[in-house]
Order: sequence, then C-alpha cells, then structure tokens
Amino acid sequence: MTNGIADKIDHTLLKAEATRRDVHKVVAEATQYRFASVCVNGVFVSDVAKALRGTGVKTCAVVGFPLGANKATVKAIEASVAVKDGAQEIDFVAHVPYLLNGDAASAKAEFIEIVKAARSANPGVVVKVIIESALLMGDVDRGEVRIEAACIAARESGCDFVKTSTGFHPAGGATVEAVRLTKKYAAGLGVKASGGIRTRDDAMAMIEAGADRLGCSASVAIVTGGQAVAAY
Amino acid sequence: MTNGIADKIDHTLLKAEATRRDVHKVVAEATQYRFASVCVNGVFVSDVAKALRGTGVKTCAVVGFPLGANKATVKAIEASVAVKDGAQEIDFVAHVPYLLNGDAASAKAEFIEIVKAARSANPGVVVKVIIESALLMGDVDRGEVRIEAACIAARESGCDFVKTSTGFHPAGGATVEAVRLTKKYAAGLGVKASGGIRTRDDAMAMIEAGADRLGCSASVAIVTGGQAVAAY
Repeated sequence: MTNGIADKIDHTLLKAEATRRDVHKVVAEATQYRFASVCVNGVFVSDVAKALRGTGVKTCAVVGFPLGANKATVKAIEASVAVKDGAQEIDFVAHVPYLLNGDAASAKAEFIEIVKAARSANPGVVVKVIIESALLMGDVDRGEVRIEAACIAARESGCDFVKTSTGFHPAGGATVEAVRLTKKYAAGLGVKASGGIRTRDDAMAMIEAGADRLGCSASVAIVTGGQAVAAY
Repeated sequence: MTNGIADKIDHTLLKAEATRRDVHKVVAEATQYRFASVCVNGVFVSDVAKALRGTGVKTCAVVGFPLGANKATVKAIEASVAVKDGAQEIDFVAHVPYLLNGDAASAKAEFIEIVKAARSANPGVVVKVIIESALLMGDVDRGEVRIEAACIAARESGCDFVKTSTGFHPAGGATVEAVRLTKKYAAGLGVKASGGIRTRDDAMAMIEAGADRLGCSASVAIVTGGQAVAAY
C-alpha cells in the first residue's frame, strides 16, 4: 500500500495560511501512513512534536524559510528554538548568493553556525541544508560547479543531508539532473529531493536519481496512487 | 521628474538570489531618486544602513518574511537584531491564520511581542505589519471583517503602518479595494501598499485609495515613467 516509499517522505505543510487544524490533519496522515516526518514552520513545531510523541514519526522544522536571506545568527537562533520545541530534524535554507558564486568557504561558515546551534540544543538532531538547486542549475555552464561547492560546504560543516529546494522559488523544485549531481557530490550525506514531487512516478524518478528522502505535500496521493491536488 | 511619489516609496529588493552588488545598486538608486527607504532582507541590513548614512534615505528590514509562520519569539529576536544593525523601519509578517480567523486578540498578542522587541532596540523605529490582504480578501463575505480585525490588532499593539502584502504569496499583492478598506480601519495608522505595483498608474491608484507608502522594486520606472521589468 505504501510502495516502500512512505518511510522516505517528509510530509510537508509550509504555506503561510496553514492553520493548526490543517497541521493536525497532516500529523494524522503521517501517523497513518508512517511517513518519516512531518515538516512544518516554526510556529507549529511544539504542537507537532507533542502530537507525534511515541508514533515513530519525526518532527521536522524549516529555518530561514524560504528565502534564506536572514542573518546566520538569526537562523541559528531559530534552529535552536525549534530543536528545543521538539524538532528532531532541521531543514534550513542557505544564503543563496554564496552558492551562486560557488563560494564554499562563505557557505560553510554560515552552515557551521546553524549546525552548531542546532546540535547544542540536541546533539542527535538531523540537519538538512536547502540549496535551491533550480537557481544553481539556471546557468548551464556553472550548475555542476555550484552544486559541488554547496555539497562541499554541507559536508565540511556537519550537515546530514543536502536538500534540493524550498518548493517556493519561481525557478522551480527538484529535477532528476539536480538530484543526480547532488548525490554525486554529497558523498556520504543524504539527499532530499523536494519541490514539485506530486505523483508516485515523480517520487520513483527522484529515488532512482539518488534521493534518500523526499519532501512532499501530496504524500498521501503518492503512497496510495491517488491524484494529488495539494500545493506544496 | 519624481512626480512627488518618490518620497512615498520603499525601494525593495527581497528575492533569495539578490547579491550584495544588487543591493548596492538599489541603494544608489534610492539615494539618487530620494526614495523613503531601501527595504531588504536581514542579511543585508547592516551593509545598507552604513551605505545610507547621511543620505536621508532610511533602512527598512523585513522580519518573518515572507510566510510569517515563525514563532513570535523568533520574529521578535529577528526584529531586534535588524534594529541593532541599523534598520529604522521594520516590516514584519503577521501569522496569517490569526487574521483569516478574524482573531484580533491572538494577532495583537503576537504584534505586541515584535513591536516591543523592535522598540527596545530603538524607541523611534517605525513598525509595519504585513497582513497579506489578498488572502484575507479571498472570501468575499469575510474580507472586510478580517481587514478590520487586523487593523484593530495593529492599532492596539503600537504598529505605525499596516502593509497589504509580501509580494510573494500566489494569492497576489495589493488591490485598490484592499487599500481602501485598510485605510478605513487603520484609522490613524499609515497604510503601505505593496505587491504588484509596477507602473506610475498603479502607484497613483494606490495613493488615491489611501496609501501613504508604497513598496516597489520597479521604483525607478515608476518615478521616471519608464517600463518596469524587475520582479518584486
């Protein structure tokens, strides 16, 4: 019934207008289908962590979302607050210009600050860095070098996963090519594909390209084979 | 040349991929055309404040942007950091579900926390609350009541302005009707229209509807009568 995909899915609800009721529906679905986690904005983390206690489904919080243009200090504080509220996974957005410039050193300095803050609150927290791969791949000649630089910064700063996309940028979400390249350079790290994954075929293509985790809002449709109507 | 509009414009650059170079271009334009402020994400505030010193153009920082779904505590810290970095104006995003529910009390409690943090860092800071009016107006029967509740919360929490939109939500930006209603209920507070204002005609329509301030990225085109190509 779950096609072996459910435990790779971060069941995600991030839109501005999501209510507590919407969040609780997502929590119930995640528990029923045994998704890997429920991924929400900071204001809901404490609530979700309480609701998921004992279910085996983790609580995932986004940080610096979706622009990544907050100060590193502020992202670090936001990560720390989310972990203290019960988040077991943190998906933070990188400052994109560093990655567009292929500037692994500046990116690494930023990532370290956020990883450190999250791990100070809970050493076991899983940290994913969102690199907005569609922007990085926008320049055909520089896409691969940029993905490589982002992955170097992720590896050297202690991130656990490299995540392709916020799902909010007009440039688009994950592509098979971006996932393949991220997998290549992420080396030992996990790869999370996100943004625009709406069907079982989308999900399978991402997993075949190397994704270890998927970020989806249409998670129930994906695992049951139904039609997705939900937006990311 | 500036049509008397320039001093009402917050010249705005908020996209994730904006670089320091892009920001400096916006600063130079704001100084040349005497816009009210330059509005940027947190990571650029300190830089912009230094560059604008002595020009009469203010530094404006967004907070909790663009989803408004961070914890109030985190938005308060982000506001405080931005003010300490030199922001003279703070545009923060409200937690939208409170406003959709017409829940002025919860909104007010959130707004107070953020206003207090910003004013602790600088008592003279101007605070604008972004209410994502296109979402509030999405239900024809409840739009006016929701705008009223948002304005009550803004007034009772000490905000200086009610701002219509982030410019990032798919529901859209400012409309003449939303500005008119916001002006009606904002009472003594200022109204900032933002999102989708790309021409001089757009700008004039918003001012006629009651806007005291405009948030635009196409600011130069608006004041010179040229064609705007920039996205918000």
